[in-house]
Amino acid sequence: METLDRTFLAHVGGKIATHLKVPVVDRVDLSVVYTPGVARVCEAIRDRRDRAFEFTIRKNTVAVVSDGSAVLGLGNIGPEAAMPVMEGKAMLFKRFADVDAFPVCLATQDVDAIVETVERIAPSFGGINLEDISSPRCFEIEDRLRKRLNIPVFHDDQHGTAVVMLAGLINALKIVNKRMEDVSVVMAGVGAAGVACTKILLAAGVGHIVGVDRVGIIERGRHYDNPVKQWYADNTNFENRRGTLDDAIRGADVFIGVSGPGILRVDHVRRMARDPIVFAMANPIPEILPEVAAGHVRVMATGRSDYPNQINNVLCFPGMFRGALDVRARDINEEMKQAAAIAIAGCVPEEQLSEQYIIPSPFDPNVVPAVSAAVQRAAVKTGVAALPARVPLDDEPMYSEI
Amino acid sequence: METLDRTFLAHVGGKIATHLKVPVVDRVDLSVVYTPGVARVCEAIRDRRDRAFEFTIRKNTVAVVSDGSAVLGLGNIGPEAAMPVMEGKAMLFKRFADVDAFPVCLATQDVDAIVETVERIAPSFGGINLEDISSPRCFEIEDRLRKRLNIPVFHDDQHGTAVVMLAGLINALKIVNKRMEDVSVVMAGVGAAGVACTKILLAAGVGHIVGVDRVGIIERGRHYDNPVKQWYADNTNFENRRGTLDDAIRGADVFIGVSGPGILRVDHVRRMARDPIVFAMANPIPEILPEVAAGHVRVMATGRSDYPNQINNVLCFPGMFRGALDVRARDINEEMKQAAAIAIAGCVPEEQLSEQYIIPSPFDPNVVPAVSAAVQRAAVKTGVAALPARVPLDDEPMYSEI
Repeated sequence: METLDRTFLAHVGGKIATHLKVPVVDRVDLSVVYTPGVARVCEAIRDRRDRAFEFTIRKNTVAVVSDGSAVLGLGNIGPEAAMPVMEGKAMLFKRFADVDAFPVCLATQDVDAIVETVERIAPSFGGINLEDISSPRCFEIEDRLRKRLNIPVFHDDQHGTAVVMLAGLINALKIVNKRMEDVSVVMAGVGAAGVACTKILLAAGVGHIVGVDRVGIIERGRHYDNPVKQWYADNTNFENRRGTLDDAIRGADVFIGVSGPGILRVDHVRRMARDPIVFAMANPIPEILPEVAAGHVRVMATGRSDYPNQINNVLCFPGMFRGALDVRARDINEEMKQAAAIAIAGCVPEEQLSEQYIIPSPFDPNVVPAVSAAVQRAAVKTGVAALPARVPLDDEPMYSEI
Repeated sequence: METLDRTFLAHVGGKIATHLKVPVVDRVDLSVVYTPGVARVCEAIRDRRDRAFEFTIRKNTVAVVSDGSAVLGLGNIGPEAAMPVMEGKAMLFKRFADVDAFPVCLATQDVDAIVETVERIAPSFGGINLEDISSPRCFEIEDRLRKRLNIPVFHDDQHGTAVVMLAGLINALKIVNKRMEDVSVVMAGVGAAGVACTKILLAAGVGHIVGVDRVGIIERGRHYDNPVKQWYADNTNFENRRGTLDDAIRGADVFIGVSGPGILRVDHVRRMARDPIVFAMANPIPEILPEVAAGHVRVMATGRSDYPNQINNVLCFPGMFRGALDVRARDINEEMKQAAAIAIAGCVPEEQLSEQYIIPSPFDPNVVPAVSAAVQRAAVKTGVAALPARVPLDDEPMYSEI
């Protein structure tokens, strides 16, 4: 008999369970929650289908969907092996935002099959959180599902990372006293997270972004077979830089890494503009270790919990879905993502803002309410909400209005 | 604002929620249930896939799958409107057998699509409970899924009803002192439940079964376009009766109704053999009301909770899946169903057995442990269990050995 350590013990039998919201003590209870009483509720929904959002778990339940093709840093480990991550995600949804979430790991990695499967199971859910699906399939799957479903669809590896990165950058720029429109950004890695980070930065007003993949700089005007890289070439690098990271990094204000371990060297950082901002988010080993970068960067963030300024998706997705579910948003759009980023950034009090503290803790109890409120407002303002916001529609600006 | 009564109030926001089995209080907890700790558990499953049954919710989680095509007596009301029933079912799984269950209502009624969808989501589950899928599609869907999945697949409308009916009949026959092999049975209704009841009766040794549908007796030797009716014609009515219910009922010992309201009249019952047994299970209005049949039948059962002897599926499915999950059965076979029926019948103590008490209460705490133990033994004896039984493999007979 093997001995299990704490981590394995915590996983025995899985990490989530079903919980009854209504007690079933006697036959009367049975006849309320099941036959014959339940029939009247069924008829009410049959007659007006959107009442499912009132009288079923759709009101508060999100599917955490993965095909196991790009799980953590482990790669394509398949649906069974992906389950512990998706269960963990479901726990975080509940723990941080009281969103009920259920892991759905799919025994297919075919784009059409994934899209049609999620469409078919959608009547049980109020939202779809896509997770750990490899690039470029994740883009098409999310795009198609967003078009076909009237509930929010959100690929967390893309947008959760992008939202929290933007939150961190908003605060980092305050420290170095630069403006979003003026900075130049090098994006290392143009997979799911890199593309999403780039899109949110463009939407936030950043004009100068140069993407770098394993081969080198994504060049403007060049033809790429990969449609994602083609999009990248068409929408970034307006100065048409060429070469490698060595060339891209020269004079850059910000380095955003969603690539691999150790690719950013000290001599790179030294060639950046004054007050370099480095978000080295590769996990578990960042593009440059904070202890290596120390003294050369002004503001540093990673994806790790053991360094200051962790760019952690858990700051975004719970509040994002909390807000989207509460106004029954039919989509999660760019405005909602930007609003979430501003709300996260705002959870760090101005007077405490420092190089070591640009991002709130995942356990900061203000984060989820702030994100949810901001998301609700943005959803209502942009017309994707079926219900009114539960918070005042005050004059808090959305990013594009700052 | 409409006023909601107790039943609707009990359904606001749905009836089940997610529950964390492990607390997440601090960063250390986070790193155990989520990254980076979770990665080692993922790797363990990647390296040996069946460990998913140890370290994920598969160990204890059942999907309650419906397409909303035959919900209660309401007919084809669609997946959204079916959700309250499936949530109620999930509650009963938890309440009675501590099985975690999740409702999956499908936005398709195509057989191929349902089969492939359930196959694709199966990595998240330890069992599949099919529910409220119309006949004859339910037969093919269950057959194909049983062949393709290595987890138990159980269409409760068929087999749950059949198991509890058999349990009731075992006890009813004790009262009238007749043997399974000797009785003649009229089955009214040859849909999902009727066919399943017929199959379990044949397996239990009943020799004389005549099926009756809306048109009349299913005739031996006749050709039917419907393959289910063809199966019925080939496997029942060995005396080759013809005509209608009026003809079938003459001299019958047992009437089993899974058809419609009021089809059995007093003059029918009068023409049955001595000590007539009538299970009028149509819901909500039985084939004959107990107050109408009183004085003419010896033992009477219905599907309703407001009369004695309720043939209630909840006596079967929780213990059935509890047992199947605990030995990680790859199938639910005939032997397991018969063992469950005997176990349910055995929960009525011999000394208390009476015309008014042939079936235990759903709230009898002995039922689920008894069913689970019997199912575990039968699974191990028939070689479909991956784990040893958690109960002694004593010499308790299976039905076929009585």
